[in-house]
Amino acid sequence: MPDFATLVGFFASSEGASNLPLQMLIIFGVAKLCGEICERLRAPAIAGEIIAGMLIGPGLLNWIQPSELIHSLADLGVMFLLFRVGLEVRASELVRVGGVAMMAALGGVIMPFIAGYLIIIQLGHSQIEAVFVGAAMVATSVGITAQVLTQRGLLNHRASRIILVAAVIDDVLGLLILAVVSSLAKGGIDYLQLSLTAALAIGFVLLIVFWGVGTATRILPLVRSHLRMAEADYVVALVLLFGLSVLAVYAGVAAIVGAFLAGMALGESADQRVHELTSGAAELLVPFFLVNIGLQLDPKVFLDPVALVPALLIFVAAVFSKLFGAGLGAFRLGRRDAFKVGIGMIPRGEVGMVVAQIGLSFGVVPQNIYAAVVFMSVMTTIVAPPLLKWAYRDARA
Amino acid sequence: MPDFATLVGFFASSEGASNLPLQMLIIFGVAKLCGEICERLRAPAIAGEIIAGMLIGPGLLNWIQPSELIHSLADLGVMFLLFRVGLEVRASELVRVGGVAMMAALGGVIMPFIAGYLIIIQLGHSQIEAVFVGAAMVATSVGITAQVLTQRGLLNHRASRIILVAAVIDDVLGLLILAVVSSLAKGGIDYLQLSLTAALAIGFVLLIVFWGVGTATRILPLVRSHLRMAEADYVVALVLLFGLSVLAVYAGVAAIVGAFLAGMALGESADQRVHELTSGAAELLVPFFLVNIGLQLDPKVFLDPVALVPALLIFVAAVFSKLFGAGLGAFRLGRRDAFKVGIGMIPRGEVGMVVAQIGLSFGVVPQNIYAAVVFMSVMTTIVAPPLLKWAYRDARA
Repeated sequence: MPDFATLVGFFASSEGASNLPLQMLIIFGVAKLCGEICERLRAPAIAGEIIAGMLIGPGLLNWIQPSELIHSLADLGVMFLLFRVGLEVRASELVRVGGVAMMAALGGVIMPFIAGYLIIIQLGHSQIEAVFVGAAMVATSVGITAQVLTQRGLLNHRASRIILVAAVIDDVLGLLILAVVSSLAKGGIDYLQLSLTAALAIGFVLLIVFWGVGTATRILPLVRSHLRMAEADYVVALVLLFGLSVLAVYAGVAAIVGAFLAGMALGESADQRVHELTSGAAELLVPFFLVNIGLQLDPKVFLDPVALVPALLIFVAAVFSKLFGAGLGAFRLGRRDAFKVGIGMIPRGEVGMVVAQIGLSFGVVPQNIYAAVVFMSVMTTIVAPPLLKWAYRDARA
Repeated sequence: MPDFATLVGFFASSEGASNLPLQMLIIFGVAKLCGEICERLRAPAIAGEIIAGMLIGPGLLNWIQPSELIHSLADLGVMFLLFRVGLEVRASELVRVGGVAMMAALGGVIMPFIAGYLIIIQLGHSQIEAVFVGAAMVATSVGITAQVLTQRGLLNHRASRIILVAAVIDDVLGLLILAVVSSLAKGGIDYLQLSLTAALAIGFVLLIVFWGVGTATRILPLVRSHLRMAEADYVVALVLLFGLSVLAVYAGVAAIVGAFLAGMALGESADQRVHELTSGAAELLVPFFLVNIGLQLDPKVFLDPVALVPALLIFVAAVFSKLFGAGLGAFRLGRRDAFKVGIGMIPRGEVGMVVAQIGLSFGVVPQNIYAAVVFMSVMTTIVAPPLLKWAYRDARA
């Protein structure tokens, strides 16, 4: 007779719409349960929700397989997460920290790239592999840090604002590096194409920050007051969220950058009701973002020394290169806040995996290095929340 | 050069995660736009959101194709819809109207079945085809009516309560009819199996109504008070929502019956915050439920007389047989409220399509009759909101 765990996996993976409630129950329920356990162990709940994904994923219990549906719910989750963060910060205050954030983003891009490059060369791999792994170690995934700072009420701390702005700049830099390494894998760099890519991405972000926010603040209340539909404020907010996410994707940056800018554009005019309704959607969807990260990592990698050693090496290099690179860039804030910025930029999340996947598909990144990048991506998201808690121990909500 | 509409369709249907924000924008944005237009024409917004699905679907603009993702978001949408309805009604008051609701459900099942059977026999089709179409005309999809009554604040009207209870009973009866016709298509009826199916479904519903609600009201506040996680009340509510939906599916009834019962179980202990957070998720997801209905129907059917005539015949029969059947069952309420009940039971939604699809897959329902059933299902959901508005014209919110 099959044991309970096997039965759950069998039912959850069976075909047809009838398994949707069960998938929802398992992912949401186990995430919240692991989060609660972590909180009782004085660890951040968010790390527990990522570990929940490793637990129910194919490597251990095999109750849930990664799927397009879970991936889409995860994408929606991180969009709502960044949208909610955008609602709670002021564009004017972010612009003020632009200079330091730019230095932090640059330092946090250059150091991990060099670190990744050197490690892979030292391990005896080719130059193109080294370039790809370096590129995969660059991009910060700001969702994890944003969620921790939101939950702890620390979003408006100076270091937090710098992290948010640096993450947006980091995303643009990551786009450019991705464009360069993709061209390298295909044969050569088209500098005109690269300049256009850069101009479009930078233009989009600057346009929204300097012109869009003010326009939205003036025009949206007028639009809403003319609508007869129920919950018009929330509907307009969601249309702006999806609309700017679409534009961001076409401009070449991540959808979450658009979601963040949409939140910022609404932040000064949205009322309490919009904040609460947004939370209702975010609380439902964010666990799917966290679980989906954990689903990518097979925890059996911890038991295999041949796989574990390069993975650990890349992981440790990813943590310290980002910490020192971004921290040095933000050093004029003083040691403590620079440290907060460095820690806040550590999580890599999905972006690094995407870069490594492209390398895998071009045949320039071997399977074991790809696995090491996935390990690095997931583990940086798991260690970041406790490190952040510790780095912000002197900050008040 | 391709026109704008073709370009939108091209981008929205392109592969990869990057099209998710665009799909969200199109479905949510067009649904809300069509809803707003309908409201300005003094028609209910909900009809506009279903028509939006016909507009952007494969038959007209072809911006959106039905997909597993949209289907899942639609299923989540109607689960949240019924959960929210459950939160706003009292179990004790529903039990009180059980007798009338049972009669309304029975009348509303028998009359449409006979009507569908006779029409198909008259059109010269076989007896098994007639049984399948009759079965497809039986099941009420309560989501549409529940949404209209929620938006107009009429959920606690006597007729509304009867509609909700009758819809749950209707779902159990529909399950039994589906079991019978499936066995017929396969060769014969297994009466033992059928009795077990009935006992399980009825037992589940009665157990939750008479024992679960009281238990939840006593135990849940205790559970929540011991949790350290953020938004613990909402998390427990969602776990109960998904949990009872799973049990409902295993008991053979629709997931939305479980969602409705979960809402009811929480109704007496959930605070304002849970209501608001639930609304935040429901407002996001319900448009996907409505658009997904419209997506099923190719509006070109209106231009083809050969397809339109049997479709119109089945549609008109579906409206009047349900109106008279359920209305007669509820006649002891007096003419006006019986009329409200009859109107409220008209929408068929997805259930009828599922029955017809099974018939199609067994080869006992031809393609043109299947199309007619889809037409009937979608059109009953579009005409129901304006009819409900009219039937409830004497009721106060």
